[in-house]
Amino acid sequence: MKDVASAAGVALKTVSRVVNGEPGVHPATAERVRAAIHRLGYSRNESARMLRRGRTATIGLVIEDVADPFYSGLSRAVEEVVIDHGCLLLSGSSGEQPGRERELVETFCARRVDGLIVVPAGEDHTYLRSELEAGTPVVFADRPPGAGLDVDTVLADNVSGAGQAVRHLLGHGHSRIAFLGDDPAIFTAAQRLQGYRAALGGLYDERLVSMRPPSLEAVRADLAGMLALDEPPTAVFAGNGRYTVTVLRALAGRRLALVGFDDFELADLLQPGVTVVAQDPSWMGRVAAELLFRRLRGDVGPSEHIELPVRLIPRGSGEIAAHP
Amino acid sequence: MKDVASAAGVALKTVSRVVNGEPGVHPATAERVRAAIHRLGYSRNESARMLRRGRTATIGLVIEDVADPFYSGLSRAVEEVVIDHGCLLLSGSSGEQPGRERELVETFCARRVDGLIVVPAGEDHTYLRSELEAGTPVVFADRPPGAGLDVDTVLADNVSGAGQAVRHLLGHGHSRIAFLGDDPAIFTAAQRLQGYRAALGGLYDERLVSMRPPSLEAVRADLAGMLALDEPPTAVFAGNGRYTVTVLRALAGRRLALVGFDDFELADLLQPGVTVVAQDPSWMGRVAAELLFRRLRGDVGPSEHIELPVRLIPRGSGEIAAHP
Repeated sequence: MKDVASAAGVALKTVSRVVNGEPGVHPATAERVRAAIHRLGYSRNESARMLRRGRTATIGLVIEDVADPFYSGLSRAVEEVVIDHGCLLLSGSSGEQPGRERELVETFCARRVDGLIVVPAGEDHTYLRSELEAGTPVVFADRPPGAGLDVDTVLADNVSGAGQAVRHLLGHGHSRIAFLGDDPAIFTAAQRLQGYRAALGGLYDERLVSMRPPSLEAVRADLAGMLALDEPPTAVFAGNGRYTVTVLRALAGRRLALVGFDDFELADLLQPGVTVVAQDPSWMGRVAAELLFRRLRGDVGPSEHIELPVRLIPRGSGEIAAHP
Repeated sequence: MKDVASAAGVALKTVSRVVNGEPGVHPATAERVRAAIHRLGYSRNESARMLRRGRTATIGLVIEDVADPFYSGLSRAVEEVVIDHGCLLLSGSSGEQPGRERELVETFCARRVDGLIVVPAGEDHTYLRSELEAGTPVVFADRPPGAGLDVDTVLADNVSGAGQAVRHLLGHGHSRIAFLGDDPAIFTAAQRLQGYRAALGGLYDERLVSMRPPSLEAVRADLAGMLALDEPPTAVFAGNGRYTVTVLRALAGRRLALVGFDDFELADLLQPGVTVVAQDPSWMGRVAAELLFRRLRGDVGPSEHIELPVRLIPRGSGEIAAHP
């Protein structure tokens, strides 16, 4: 700091004021001090100082895909809480690859993040154990950790949400209700299948179920196969937002009843409007981030497992009757 | 590393293998080494080593809002290039606040990011000068920096894109074309106004122009005012994706021709499909990131100013004739 003061031609106190963001320094002087700081590489000490404190004032967030509106909504909510706490958010997308999830988490840990929020892609999180033992709080969101890891989790109530969707369709006279959803290896997809199956009871028919990563070709083929059955489906329950949009494209105007899991922009402007079981990604992000900051403030109570309710929003597509 | 080896009860070479991700270590042993590393706080040396090298292998990205599909698409593309280069992305949203943009950039710089990609919210970027002089490459995307800063920029061709939209509507017989767009203090909004105005020439009427942050109430009121004119608009040019969606809601089924700037998911599924001037946020993100890595590899050529073309996609709403 003495070097900076002498390079900028100011008092030591002035440098300290600029570094700590205190008032009372003329803008031009502050700029000169900052230039000197950068010239001398002083800013490196920012990281060094944080290393000495063992704190970096950053939160790491691993999501599945920032380009998916569910995760960008969650991400934005987490970021707002993080900023409110004067911290910085590091984020990355796993792309549904367990290897990349782990790589991101380990890189974040190597940079000494204060805490982690993870939407897991993989099922084995034993690699997080040493980090947890070292005292870094971790909150899982949207999906729980693999077996053997007892950490805070914030999930949506997927099972009862799927049940609501199916009962809504049953109530409109449908008994042949197809389920198209993502790979059952994904926790949320498996949970929604469970809710669908439980609500259907004896009406469950595995020929009306297709679960794999969404692609227009696959959904078209699966729907065509189902519609060629002797007793074809008259309604579809789509397992997530991406799936709902893909099913809409594949239906190409064919008038099947449809309820989708996840709300999405413009769902109300389509004709008919799309009935959905809505979860709130902003809420999930906020709850996960607030829980993390509670842990950072020293709350060492037992792990919390929060399940956020979802709600059915009727807009037209889910109210098409089975027998018009 | 010796302490880690002795704490884990393994050879120094084994620690080195685990740290460098080399094969040939039994998973249980690797786990023991990792636990010892964390117990001893060895991972802090990761940052320290990077500080010694003066490199942190991170890229900082400042966008406007991660929840806006344009920016989440750009963000995802940047992240993919960054990951391909074995680096990590730090990202944050400015929320259209110049103060937060600066705060994010300065925090990134204090953590010694290798390079920065900035979608600016503010117009004064002189605060970046010392960082640029210190050799940190910066690429501006979507919007250029304020006066006096000569850096690489990647923009869309906003002026000619707006011109295309207007000429398309003129071609369908419209002479009363409204423009609803964001605050003209935002570069892209001002550029699109310029293209709109130039294409209209003598038909320009300031009573058909409304520019402010999008809200359903404001857009409804502005449209109602315009439609009450003696010569009301028969077509609307919406200044960005958020505006297009807001205008669609405000029109509430009223059959005005509409062309929007920015493509969006489901634009083709609405009835009529929404005609747009599409820019490609993934392309912009990739080009900006590749340019940044070229600078990081030592390219010291003059600043580049890239303008990406946009294209009109007719889908129905822009082809509604003025006089049916």
